[in-house]
Amino acid sequence: MPMIRETIVTTLNEQGKVHIAPLGLIADGDGWIIAPFRPSTTLDNLRTTPFAVANFTDDVLVFAGCLVGQKDWPTRAAERVPGAVLDASLAHAELQVREIEEDDLRPRFHCRIVYEANHAPFKGFNRAQSAVIEAAILASRVHMLPREKIEQELAYLQIAVEKTAGPREHEAWRLLIEKIEDHYKHPST
Amino acid sequence: MPMIRETIVTTLNEQGKVHIAPLGLIADGDGWIIAPFRPSTTLDNLRTTPFAVANFTDDVLVFAGCLVGQKDWPTRAAERVPGAVLDASLAHAELQVREIEEDDLRPRFHCRIVYEANHAPFKGFNRAQSAVIEAAILASRVHMLPREKIEQELAYLQIAVEKTAGPREHEAWRLLIEKIEDHYKHPST
Repeated sequence: MPMIRETIVTTLNEQGKVHIAPLGLIADGDGWIIAPFRPSTTLDNLRTTPFAVANFTDDVLVFAGCLVGQKDWPTRAAERVPGAVLDASLAHAELQVREIEEDDLRPRFHCRIVYEANHAPFKGFNRAQSAVIEAAILASRVHMLPREKIEQELAYLQIAVEKTAGPREHEAWRLLIEKIEDHYKHPST
Repeated sequence: MPMIRETIVTTLNEQGKVHIAPLGLIADGDGWIIAPFRPSTTLDNLRTTPFAVANFTDDVLVFAGCLVGQKDWPTRAAERVPGAVLDASLAHAELQVREIEEDDLRPRFHCRIVYEANHAPFKGFNRAQSAVIEAAILASRVHMLPREKIEQELAYLQIAVEKTAGPREHEAWRLLIEKIEDHYKHPST
Protein backbone atom coordinates (compact mmCIF):
# COMPACT_ATOMS: atom_id res chain seq x y z
CA MET A 1 0.00 0.00 0.00
CA PRO A 2 1.31 3.50 -0.80
CA MET A 3 1.67 6.19 1.81
CA ILE A 4 -1.37 8.41 2.43
CA ARG A 5 -1.13 11.98 3.73
CA GLU A 6 -4.12 13.75 5.29
CA THR A 7 -4.28 17.19 3.70
CA ILE A 8 -6.67 20.01 2.89
CA VAL A 9 -7.30 20.01 -0.88
CA THR A 10 -8.56 23.15 -2.60
CA THR A 11 -10.14 23.13 -6.05
CA LEU A 12 -12.06 25.67 -8.15
CA ASN A 13 -15.43 25.35 -9.85
CA GLU A 14 -16.13 26.81 -13.31
CA GLN A 15 -16.96 30.18 -11.76
CA GLY A 16 -13.64 30.21 -9.89
CA LYS A 17 -15.23 29.59 -6.48
CA VAL A 18 -12.85 27.88 -4.05
CA HIS A 19 -13.84 24.54 -2.54
CA ILE A 20 -11.99 23.29 0.57
CA ALA A 21 -12.03 19.59 1.51
CA PRO A 22 -10.02 17.37 3.86
CA LEU A 23 -8.67 14.51 1.73
CA GLY A 24 -6.12 11.74 2.03
CA LEU A 25 -3.65 12.13 -0.83
CA ILE A 26 -1.96 9.00 -2.13
CA ALA A 27 1.81 9.29 -2.69
CA ASP A 28 2.60 8.40 -6.31
CA GLY A 29 6.32 8.67 -7.09
CA ASP A 30 7.02 12.37 -7.58
CA GLY A 31 3.33 13.24 -7.64
CA TRP A 32 0.09 12.70 -5.76
CA ILE A 33 -3.16 10.87 -6.53
CA ILE A 34 -6.41 12.55 -5.50
CA ALA A 35 -9.25 10.02 -5.20
CA PRO A 36 -12.46 11.88 -4.32
CA PHE A 37 -15.64 9.92 -3.65
CA ARG A 38 -18.59 10.06 -6.05
CA PRO A 39 -20.48 12.33 -5.74
CA SER A 40 -18.42 15.24 -4.40
CA THR A 41 -17.63 18.85 -5.23
CA THR A 42 -13.90 18.07 -5.44
CA LEU A 43 -14.67 15.44 -8.09
CA ASP A 44 -16.86 17.82 -10.11
CA ASN A 45 -14.26 20.59 -9.85
CA LEU A 46 -11.36 18.38 -10.96
CA ARG A 47 -13.33 17.45 -14.10
CA THR A 48 -13.89 21.05 -15.15
CA THR A 49 -10.73 22.70 -13.71
CA PRO A 50 -8.06 19.99 -13.67
CA PHE A 51 -5.85 21.61 -11.02
CA ALA A 52 -5.68 21.43 -7.23
CA VAL A 53 -3.64 22.66 -4.30
CA ALA A 54 -2.49 20.19 -1.63
CA ASN A 55 -2.32 22.22 1.57
CA PHE A 56 -0.10 20.66 4.21
CA THR A 57 -1.38 22.11 7.47
CA ASP A 58 -1.19 21.00 11.10
CA ASP A 59 -4.19 23.18 11.98
CA VAL A 60 -6.69 20.49 12.93
CA LEU A 61 -9.40 23.09 13.40
CA VAL A 62 -9.56 23.36 9.59
CA PHE A 63 -10.13 19.59 9.30
CA ALA A 64 -12.77 19.55 12.05
CA GLY A 65 -14.36 22.76 10.78
CA CYS A 66 -14.81 21.38 7.26
CA LEU A 67 -16.56 18.32 8.72
CA VAL A 68 -19.07 20.42 10.65
CA GLY A 69 -19.76 22.79 7.74
CA GLN A 70 -17.31 25.60 8.62
CA LYS A 71 -15.54 25.88 5.29
CA ASP A 72 -14.77 29.57 5.18
CA TRP A 73 -10.99 29.49 5.83
CA PRO A 74 -8.74 32.26 4.51
CA THR A 75 -6.93 31.48 1.25
CA ARG A 76 -4.82 33.34 -1.29
CA ALA A 77 -4.30 32.76 -5.02
CA ALA A 78 -1.91 29.95 -5.98
CA GLU A 79 1.36 30.88 -7.74
CA ARG A 80 1.29 28.75 -10.89
CA VAL A 81 -2.10 27.08 -11.25
CA PRO A 82 -5.74 28.22 -11.06
CA GLY A 83 -6.27 27.50 -7.37
CA ALA A 84 -6.15 28.69 -3.77
CA VAL A 85 -3.56 28.26 -1.02
CA LEU A 86 -4.84 27.91 2.53
CA ASP A 87 -3.29 30.61 4.75
CA ALA A 88 -2.91 28.03 7.53
CA SER A 89 -0.63 25.82 5.38
CA LEU A 90 2.85 25.05 6.67
CA ALA A 91 3.68 24.06 3.07
CA HIS A 92 1.75 23.47 -0.12
CA ALA A 93 2.00 21.82 -3.54
CA GLU A 94 0.25 23.09 -6.68
CA LEU A 95 -0.99 20.18 -8.77
CA GLN A 96 -2.08 19.57 -12.35
CA VAL A 97 -4.14 16.53 -13.30
CA ARG A 98 -2.19 14.49 -15.86
CA GLU A 99 -4.33 11.36 -16.02
CA ILE A 100 -7.72 10.17 -14.80
CA GLU A 101 -8.29 6.54 -13.81
CA GLU A 102 -12.06 6.06 -13.79
CA ASP A 103 -13.67 4.12 -10.94
CA ASP A 104 -17.30 3.63 -9.86
CA LEU A 105 -16.55 4.62 -6.26
CA ARG A 106 -13.43 6.81 -6.28
CA PRO A 107 -11.96 7.95 -9.63
CA ARG A 108 -8.22 8.52 -9.28
CA PHE A 109 -6.75 11.81 -10.53
CA HIS A 110 -3.01 11.36 -11.04
CA CYS A 111 -1.37 14.74 -10.54
CA ARG A 112 2.05 16.17 -11.19
CA ILE A 113 3.55 18.86 -8.97
CA VAL A 114 3.80 22.19 -10.80
CA TYR A 115 5.10 24.22 -7.84
CA GLU A 116 5.88 23.71 -4.15
CA ALA A 117 6.55 26.10 -1.27
CA ASN A 118 7.54 25.78 2.39
CA HIS A 119 6.01 28.50 4.56
CA ALA A 120 6.42 27.68 8.23
CA PRO A 121 8.27 25.05 10.27
CA PHE A 122 6.81 21.75 11.39
CA LYS A 123 6.83 21.75 15.22
CA GLY A 124 6.84 18.01 15.86
CA PHE A 125 4.12 15.45 16.28
CA ASN A 126 1.23 16.23 18.59
CA ARG A 127 -0.81 13.26 19.81
CA ALA A 128 -3.94 15.37 20.19
CA GLN A 129 -3.75 16.46 16.55
CA SER A 130 -3.55 12.81 15.52
CA ALA A 131 -6.53 12.02 17.73
CA VAL A 132 -8.53 14.82 16.09
CA ILE A 133 -7.71 13.44 12.63
CA GLU A 134 -8.95 10.00 13.73
CA ALA A 135 -12.08 11.54 15.25
CA ALA A 136 -12.70 13.46 12.02
CA ILE A 137 -12.62 10.17 10.10
CA LEU A 138 -15.05 8.64 12.61
CA ALA A 139 -17.34 11.69 12.32
CA SER A 140 -17.39 11.29 8.54
CA ARG A 141 -18.38 7.61 8.89
CA VAL A 142 -20.93 7.95 11.64
CA HIS A 143 -23.64 6.63 9.30
CA MET A 144 -21.64 3.51 8.45
CA LEU A 145 -20.02 2.37 11.71
CA PRO A 146 -21.60 0.82 14.83
CA ARG A 147 -22.17 3.34 17.60
CA GLU A 148 -20.34 1.15 20.14
CA LYS A 149 -17.19 1.07 18.02
CA ILE A 150 -17.24 4.84 17.55
CA GLU A 151 -17.73 5.49 21.26
CA GLN A 152 -14.96 3.05 22.24
CA GLU A 153 -12.50 4.64 19.83
CA LEU A 154 -13.40 8.17 20.94
CA ALA A 155 -12.84 7.18 24.59
CA TYR A 156 -9.38 5.91 23.66
CA LEU A 157 -8.52 8.97 21.53
CA GLN A 158 -9.72 11.40 24.18
CA ILE A 159 -6.84 10.42 26.50
CA ALA A 160 -4.26 11.89 24.10
CA VAL A 161 -6.38 15.03 23.71
CA GLU A 162 -6.53 15.55 27.48
CA LYS A 163 -2.80 15.00 27.85
CA THR A 164 -1.33 16.91 24.91
CA ALA A 165 -3.83 19.30 23.26
CA GLY A 166 -3.47 23.05 22.86
CA PRO A 167 -6.52 25.33 22.49
CA ARG A 168 -7.06 24.66 18.74
CA GLU A 169 -7.00 20.91 19.28
CA HIS A 170 -9.48 21.18 22.17
CA GLU A 171 -11.82 23.27 20.02
CA ALA A 172 -11.50 20.88 17.06
CA TRP A 173 -12.22 17.91 19.32
CA ARG A 174 -15.27 19.66 20.79
CA LEU A 175 -16.71 20.39 17.32
CA LEU A 176 -16.36 16.75 16.26
CA ILE A 177 -17.79 15.29 19.47
CA GLU A 178 -20.74 17.67 19.18
CA LYS A 179 -21.35 16.57 15.59
CA ILE A 180 -21.23 12.88 16.51
CA GLU A 181 -23.52 13.39 19.52
CA ASP A 182 -25.95 15.37 17.34
CA HIS A 183 -26.10 12.45 14.94
CA TYR A 184 -27.19 10.09 17.73
CA LYS A 185 -29.74 12.60 19.00
CA HIS A 186 -31.15 13.24 15.52
CA PRO A 187 -30.22 10.14 13.51
CA SER A 188 -32.02 11.35 10.39
CA THR A 189 -29.77 14.41 9.89
CA MET B 1 -2.87 21.40 30.12
CA PRO B 2 -0.27 22.88 27.76
CA MET B 3 0.40 21.49 24.31
CA ILE B 4 2.99 18.72 24.05
CA ARG B 5 5.04 18.04 20.90
CA GLU B 6 6.81 14.72 20.34
CA THR B 7 10.33 15.54 19.20
CA ILE B 8 13.85 14.16 19.12
CA VAL B 9 15.96 16.03 21.67
CA THR B 10 19.74 16.09 21.36
CA THR B 11 22.05 17.03 24.24
CA LEU B 12 25.80 16.81 24.83
CA ASN B 13 27.70 15.27 27.73
CA GLU B 14 30.81 16.88 29.24
CA GLN B 15 32.98 15.21 26.61
CA GLY B 16 30.80 16.61 23.82
CA LYS B 17 29.26 13.24 22.95
CA VAL B 18 25.79 13.59 21.37
CA HIS B 19 22.82 11.91 23.06
CA ILE B 20 19.59 11.43 21.07
CA ALA B 21 16.27 10.85 22.85
CA PRO B 22 12.59 10.97 21.84
CA LEU B 23 10.91 13.39 24.25
CA GLY B 24 7.62 15.23 24.55
CA LEU B 25 8.37 18.94 24.80
CA ILE B 26 5.93 21.12 26.70
CA ALA B 27 4.98 24.40 24.99
CA ASP B 28 5.77 27.31 27.34
CA GLY B 29 4.95 30.68 25.81
CA ASP B 30 7.78 31.51 23.41
CA GLY B 31 9.93 28.64 24.73
CA TRP B 32 9.82 24.96 25.56
CA ILE B 33 10.04 22.93 28.76
CA ILE B 34 12.10 19.72 28.70
CA ALA B 35 11.06 17.38 31.53
CA PRO B 36 13.31 14.30 31.41
CA PHE B 37 12.69 11.43 33.82
CA ARG B 38 15.14 10.64 36.63
CA PRO B 39 17.49 8.93 35.96
CA SER B 40 18.29 9.66 32.31
CA THR B 41 21.18 10.73 30.14
CA THR B 42 19.25 13.78 28.90
CA LEU B 43 18.82 14.88 32.54
CA ASP B 44 22.53 14.41 33.33
CA ASN B 45 23.54 16.23 30.15
CA LEU B 46 21.25 19.22 30.77
CA ARG B 47 22.83 19.69 34.21
CA THR B 48 26.39 19.85 32.84
CA THR B 49 25.73 21.38 29.38
CA PRO B 50 22.55 23.47 29.73
CA PHE B 51 21.66 23.50 26.03
CA ALA B 52 19.58 21.25 23.80
CA VAL B 53 18.29 20.99 20.25
CA ALA B 54 14.61 20.24 19.63
CA ASN B 55 14.54 18.34 16.34
CA PHE B 56 11.15 18.43 14.64
CA THR B 57 11.17 15.37 12.40
CA ASP B 58 8.45 13.24 10.84
CA ASP B 59 10.86 10.32 10.42
CA VAL B 60 9.25 7.82 12.78
CA LEU B 61 12.10 5.39 12.19
CA VAL B 62 14.25 7.65 14.42
CA PHE B 63 11.67 7.44 17.23
CA ALA B 64 11.31 3.65 16.91
CA GLY B 65 15.06 3.17 16.44
CA CYS B 66 15.88 5.05 19.66
CA LEU B 67 13.46 2.82 21.56
CA VAL B 68 15.10 -0.38 20.33
CA GLY B 69 18.64 0.86 20.92
CA GLN B 70 19.46 2.20 17.42
CA LYS B 71 20.65 5.67 18.38
CA ASP B 72 23.28 6.30 15.74
CA TRP B 73 21.44 8.81 13.54
CA PRO B 74 23.37 11.35 11.47
CA THR B 75 23.67 14.83 13.00
CA ARG B 76 25.57 18.06 12.31
CA ALA B 77 26.76 20.80 14.65
CA ALA B 78 24.13 23.29 15.81
CA GLU B 79 24.46 26.93 14.67
CA ARG B 80 24.38 28.90 17.93
CA VAL B 81 24.59 26.49 20.88
CA PRO B 82 26.77 23.53 21.85
CA GLY B 83 24.60 20.81 20.35
CA ALA B 84 23.70 18.63 17.39
CA VAL B 85 21.00 18.92 14.73
CA LEU B 86 19.47 15.70 13.45
CA ASP B 87 19.87 15.47 9.66
CA ALA B 88 16.33 14.05 9.43
CA SER B 89 14.80 17.21 10.97
CA LEU B 90 12.22 19.12 8.95
CA ALA B 91 12.92 22.03 11.32
CA HIS B 92 14.78 22.55 14.57
CA ALA B 93 15.09 24.92 17.53
CA GLU B 94 18.30 25.51 19.49
CA LEU B 95 17.55 25.90 23.19
CA GLN B 96 19.27 27.30 26.25
CA VAL B 97 18.17 26.34 29.76
CA ARG B 98 17.12 29.48 31.62
CA GLU B 99 15.59 27.97 34.76
CA ILE B 100 15.36 24.58 36.44
CA GLU B 101 12.28 23.57 38.40
CA GLU B 102 13.34 20.61 40.56
CA ASP B 103 11.05 17.60 40.88
CA ASP B 104 11.53 14.11 42.32
CA LEU B 105 10.24 12.42 39.19
CA ARG B 106 10.72 14.84 36.27
CA PRO B 107 12.70 18.06 36.81
CA ARG B 108 11.52 20.76 34.40
CA PHE B 109 14.13 22.63 32.37
CA HIS B 110 12.58 25.87 31.09
CA CYS B 111 14.34 26.78 27.85
CA ARG B 112 14.45 29.82 25.65
CA ILE B 113 14.87 29.57 21.88
CA VAL B 114 18.28 30.88 20.75
CA TYR B 115 17.88 30.00 17.06
CA GLU B 116 15.37 28.30 14.78
CA ALA B 117 15.54 26.98 11.23
CA ASN B 118 13.09 25.46 8.74
CA HIS B 119 14.74 22.86 6.47
CA ALA B 120 12.09 20.88 4.59
CA PRO B 121 8.33 21.09 4.09
CA PHE B 122 5.78 19.28 6.22
CA LYS B 123 3.88 16.88 3.93
CA GLY B 124 0.64 16.54 5.88
CA PHE B 125 -0.53 14.19 8.59
CA ASN B 126 0.07 10.48 8.14
CA ARG B 127 -2.07 8.18 10.28
CA ALA B 128 0.61 5.48 10.27
CA GLN B 129 3.18 7.90 11.68
CA SER B 130 0.77 8.76 14.48
CA ALA B 131 0.21 5.05 15.13
CA VAL B 132 3.97 4.48 15.35
CA ILE B 133 4.30 7.31 17.89
CA GLU B 134 1.55 5.71 20.00
CA ALA B 135 3.20 2.28 19.68
CA ALA B 136 6.55 3.80 20.72
CA ILE B 137 4.91 5.12 23.89
CA LEU B 138 3.40 1.67 24.54
CA ALA B 139 6.80 0.02 23.94
CA SER B 140 8.39 2.35 26.48
CA ARG B 141 5.72 1.42 29.08
CA VAL B 142 5.61 -2.31 28.48
CA HIS B 143 6.80 -2.95 32.07
CA MET B 144 4.03 -0.81 33.55
CA LEU B 145 0.89 -1.57 31.51
CA PRO B 146 -1.27 -4.74 31.38
CA ARG B 147 -0.46 -6.95 28.40
CA GLU B 148 -4.11 -7.09 27.35
CA LYS B 149 -4.34 -3.30 27.14
CA ILE B 150 -1.16 -3.10 25.08
CA GLU B 151 -2.30 -5.81 22.66
CA GLN B 152 -5.74 -4.23 22.24
CA GLU B 153 -4.26 -0.83 21.48
CA LEU B 154 -1.72 -2.27 19.03
CA ALA B 155 -4.51 -4.10 17.19
CA TYR B 156 -6.37 -0.81 16.81
CA LEU B 157 -3.28 1.15 15.75
CA GLN B 158 -2.23 -1.48 13.23
CA ILE B 159 -5.24 -0.69 11.02
CA ALA B 160 -3.91 2.81 10.26
CA VAL B 161 -0.45 1.36 9.58
CA GLU B 162 -1.86 -1.12 7.08
CA LYS B 163 -3.92 1.55 5.34
CA THR B 164 -1.54 4.51 5.18
CA ALA B 165 2.11 3.59 5.89
CA GLY B 166 5.09 4.06 3.62
CA PRO B 167 8.23 1.90 3.91
CA ARG B 168 9.76 3.82 6.85
CA GLU B 169 6.56 3.60 8.85
CA HIS B 170 6.29 -0.16 8.17
CA GLU B 171 9.89 -0.66 9.32
CA ALA B 172 9.39 1.47 12.44
CA TRP B 173 6.22 -0.47 13.30
CA ARG B 174 8.03 -3.79 12.82
CA LEU B 175 10.86 -2.75 15.18
CA LEU B 176 8.43 -1.74 17.91
CA ILE B 177 6.25 -4.86 17.62
CA GLU B 178 9.39 -7.01 17.76
CA LYS B 179 10.54 -5.21 20.90
CA ILE B 180 7.17 -5.65 22.59
CA GLU B 181 6.96 -9.34 21.60
CA ASP B 182 10.50 -9.88 22.89
CA HIS B 183 9.48 -8.46 26.22
CA TYR B 184 6.70 -11.02 26.57
CA LYS B 185 9.00 -13.86 25.50
CA HIS B 186 11.75 -12.78 27.90
CA PRO B 187 9.97 -10.74 30.59
CA SER B 188 13.15 -10.17 32.62
CA THR B 189 14.90 -8.18 29.87
